[in-house]
Amino acid sequence: MPRDGNPTRERILRAAERLMTDQGYSATSVDQVIAAAASSKGAFFHHFSSKTDLAVHLMRRYVAGDLAQLDAGLTATAHLTDPAARVVAFLRYYEDGADHLMTEQSGCLYATVLAEREFTGSEMNDEIARTARTWRDAVAGLLRPALGGRRDIDVEALADHLYTTFEGGFILCRTYADPSAMRAQLRIHRQLVEALLGS
Amino acid sequence: MPRDGNPTRERILRAAERLMTDQGYSATSVDQVIAAAASSKGAFFHHFSSKTDLAVHLMRRYVAGDLAQLDAGLTATAHLTDPAARVVAFLRYYEDGADHLMTEQSGCLYATVLAEREFTGSEMNDEIARTARTWRDAVAGLLRPALGGRRDIDVEALADHLYTTFEGGFILCRTYADPSAMRAQLRIHRQLVEALLGS
Repeated sequence: MPRDGNPTRERILRAAERLMTDQGYSATSVDQVIAAAASSKGAFFHHFSSKTDLAVHLMRRYVAGDLAQLDAGLTATAHLTDPAARVVAFLRYYEDGADHLMTEQSGCLYATVLAEREFTGSEMNDEIARTARTWRDAVAGLLRPALGGRRDIDVEALADHLYTTFEGGFILCRTYADPSAMRAQLRIHRQLVEALLGS
Repeated sequence: MPRDGNPTRERILRAAERLMTDQGYSATSVDQVIAAAASSKGAFFHHFSSKTDLAVHLMRRYVAGDLAQLDAGLTATAHLTDPAARVVAFLRYYEDGADHLMTEQSGCLYATVLAEREFTGSEMNDEIARTARTWRDAVAGLLRPALGGRRDIDVEALADHLYTTFEGGFILCRTYADPSAMRAQLRIHRQLVEALLGS
């Protein structure tokens, strides 16, 4: 079901997300998006004023989906009272979702947008940074009680390492043309964190 | 000193690498490269037949630099006889070089090229995969004796996690507009591997 009830707008957004993630923002034209969405110029410009406007709406939708994923992992593990067990279960939640993720997308829209100089300093890039910080704060909140005051560990860097693993994982999958590399990377990341919490 | 003895060719390659890494391959025109290199169309086409030809030569140069970095880390730690100590020292070699790396480049040419659909299945993408496998085999060779036959760990995935950390680290640096995030990510990665080897 389209998220906002307008099937044409949703079809254009889906096509644009796939094309831009697959081939980059600059390399994607409005005409390509219209063709991939089986839409028309009239319908496109009814919903979006320009390619940049499309990108802004695409980012808003992508961030909402990303934050929903964070909430899902937090909710799925909220019943666990042992801090270390909750961290491990939280990471395993994304590990278990990795193969499905790779059928849905070939890369991350954040990386696509961050690769474009024209968005440097834009509201869109601010939104990516805010979203990454939201993940960092939430994961750091799970990690702190599990780490029990280890002063040699930068908790925020450790929290960011999940984002790093996702972003690097997408590039590794492209490097080897092997989508199963995402799951393998999230698994090794979870095992590394388990070792740290157990040590 | 220019690596091949031709200063104009080297200046064009350096300018192209910076522009393409900063703003993407599609968004970078030959005219922009010529302007950034303070060169001319005549000089450009004396050295390169097209933008694609430039990219091929750029990749060849980048891969050579990348493999030299791998050799440097292996050589710097070759004297260490304890397998775990060598792994940790090897990872620390790149951690110590992270701040310098981030003054030299804002991203990885591999990620830039892999983001372009036009290179899918190309010799260039094959070369990226071959180089990533060279790193994986070398790092796995260091990890195997240090892990002492732990069967729950996918040694190749753990070896790939260094590449994942570099690639994800570049994107994290862009996300926060903070080049120091690369060093923090390589540090936490080294600490995680240390915990795994010590556990």
